[in-house]
Amino acid sequence: MTAGTQMLAEMSEQPHVLGVLAGRRPELVARLRAALPERPLGIVLVARGSSDHAAVYGRYVLERASGRPVSLAAPSLHTLYEIEADYSGYVAVAVSQSGRTPEIATVLDRLAEAGACTIAITNDADSPLARTARAAVDLGAGPERAVPATKTLTAQIAAFAILAEALGPVPWSGRDWAALPGGVEAVLSDPEPAHRAAEAIGDADGLIAVARGYLYCVALEAALKLKETTAILAEGYSTADFRHGPIAVVERDRPLVAFAARGPAAPDVEALMDEVRVRGGRVIAVSDATDADVSLPRDVPEPLAPIPAAVRAQQLARELALMRGVDPDAPFGLAKVTRTH
Amino acid sequence: MTAGTQMLAEMSEQPHVLGVLAGRRPELVARLRAALPERPLGIVLVARGSSDHAAVYGRYVLERASGRPVSLAAPSLHTLYEIEADYSGYVAVAVSQSGRTPEIATVLDRLAEAGACTIAITNDADSPLARTARAAVDLGAGPERAVPATKTLTAQIAAFAILAEALGPVPWSGRDWAALPGGVEAVLSDPEPAHRAAEAIGDADGLIAVARGYLYCVALEAALKLKETTAILAEGYSTADFRHGPIAVVERDRPLVAFAARGPAAPDVEALMDEVRVRGGRVIAVSDATDADVSLPRDVPEPLAPIPAAVRAQQLARELALMRGVDPDAPFGLAKVTRTH
Repeated sequence: MTAGTQMLAEMSEQPHVLGVLAGRRPELVARLRAALPERPLGIVLVARGSSDHAAVYGRYVLERASGRPVSLAAPSLHTLYEIEADYSGYVAVAVSQSGRTPEIATVLDRLAEAGACTIAITNDADSPLARTARAAVDLGAGPERAVPATKTLTAQIAAFAILAEALGPVPWSGRDWAALPGGVEAVLSDPEPAHRAAEAIGDADGLIAVARGYLYCVALEAALKLKETTAILAEGYSTADFRHGPIAVVERDRPLVAFAARGPAAPDVEALMDEVRVRGGRVIAVSDATDADVSLPRDVPEPLAPIPAAVRAQQLARELALMRGVDPDAPFGLAKVTRTH
Repeated sequence: MTAGTQMLAEMSEQPHVLGVLAGRRPELVARLRAALPERPLGIVLVARGSSDHAAVYGRYVLERASGRPVSLAAPSLHTLYEIEADYSGYVAVAVSQSGRTPEIATVLDRLAEAGACTIAITNDADSPLARTARAAVDLGAGPERAVPATKTLTAQIAAFAILAEALGPVPWSGRDWAALPGGVEAVLSDPEPAHRAAEAIGDADGLIAVARGYLYCVALEAALKLKETTAILAEGYSTADFRHGPIAVVERDRPLVAFAARGPAAPDVEALMDEVRVRGGRVIAVSDATDADVSLPRDVPEPLAPIPAAVRAQQLARELALMRGVDPDAPFGLAKVTRTH
């Protein structure tokens, strides 16, 4: 099979997968509401790798919807240090594509023993994780064989948006959901800007990906995808954190890839892009602004924009891998399921 | 002034600063207990930059001590998106060297309005943050003028350990506190291994710093210090996350700097070091094992080892900066207090 064919095929399924999930919203929200406590004290998310970036998105939308603090679990507290914990009144959400990552399953079991109401987001309704959780969201994305998670990552983001709807008010509407598959389709049918951005990155040894707020997860995800598929040193940052020190690493030969969509976080990202340009650094803007280097659909609002933006990150990683002679379907001998204890 | 003199002078004050904090433990624990709710529902930490790495340490020790989930705040939820939140029953801890970072002060105010019991950890008892919080820990570290935070960072870590003691059981003793200043002194009086490690890094374009559990914060801090002072692309990782994808970025020319101390997390770090060596990568081990490249004091237990390990990271960053002709006291025109809103 030609290099990158598998990844491209799975990327192209995203409008369909997202459309099906959007259609299942009423059923999923009802199922989740039946399992969730009426007023959770807080929410804890358990994930690794790309799934952890979906959890970073969840961190924002679930806290907004529930009004209660949301935390990303520190798994070693439960697997290595075996602390005594009281999670009664809490909701614990585990995210794993396979539903078979041993560490994630162990942590969810421990949090259940500590009193948490458990929710699983997996791509396999028969997986151990889905079977042991009080309620599960099956992504229905179909098998994913390429090493870089694509359709399962965007489906996980969508699942967190649906979980937010089960918890409280959300900053999007049914119309926004309806626009989502088309927005992703528009991105997929327009790979040329990502190709040009990959050419602009060229043989850089590294880059920094930034965003803020809802889109922060995409900066992390873009950096991971690029590292996985090309071994470039790419690090994801919140624009706010990036100002606290390491801005000097961005220079002519190490571009800044910035993600933004119209909304409260966009001015901060634009300000950082300007700062970097003033310092002589090179900027690749992925946004819904008219002067973007890589466009995002204008009819998907900021709180759902991580989905089309993640697809732009997939395109960018795939193009750069192919340019560097790496097969993005199975780069550097990486395995699909990682065993961590 | 000779390059790096200021940073070195501030580094050398650490045994004294830590000794004073250790001596003030009874007073500080009593003051904190008087302010804290008897059984917090959860704890939220607010910080940026190096202070955020002290908070990552806090995340582990506070969750262990309180048995309740600890979360790192997403400031934009409060400063940009202005969500409706209910933090009643929660403790919010803000960490800022100056106590004057506007974003941190704004977030703490919002969390107080939302019902949280607020604690400030600052180096200035008269700062706005210290004055508005219900209780404050003043680090007493004296003025810090070099851009890279050194003595305030290790003092912040110590402050989180003291806060943990106010909340519940902790995995260290008074004897361990007594050993701490001497352990840090031993590291400071033995800079040669850090110098050799900096030579081993040489002109690498990047590196990965890893650790797990209590020491994870030091991987993040080492990466930030190295980026700040040398503009090398250094990224900090949990060993568990690093296995989920980006291991291919470590190779002959990009070393892995691994931090470990005897305890539950050490075998995972050792296993990753072995994996990287098998792949032909280069490893610099900073640990209390006898075969370490850079030693850590053996009488400081794993849960307090982030303090001497952070001092090793300071030495490494300073040595590499000097080797690369950068003044670590004020690298690349960075400012000491960052204004983020």
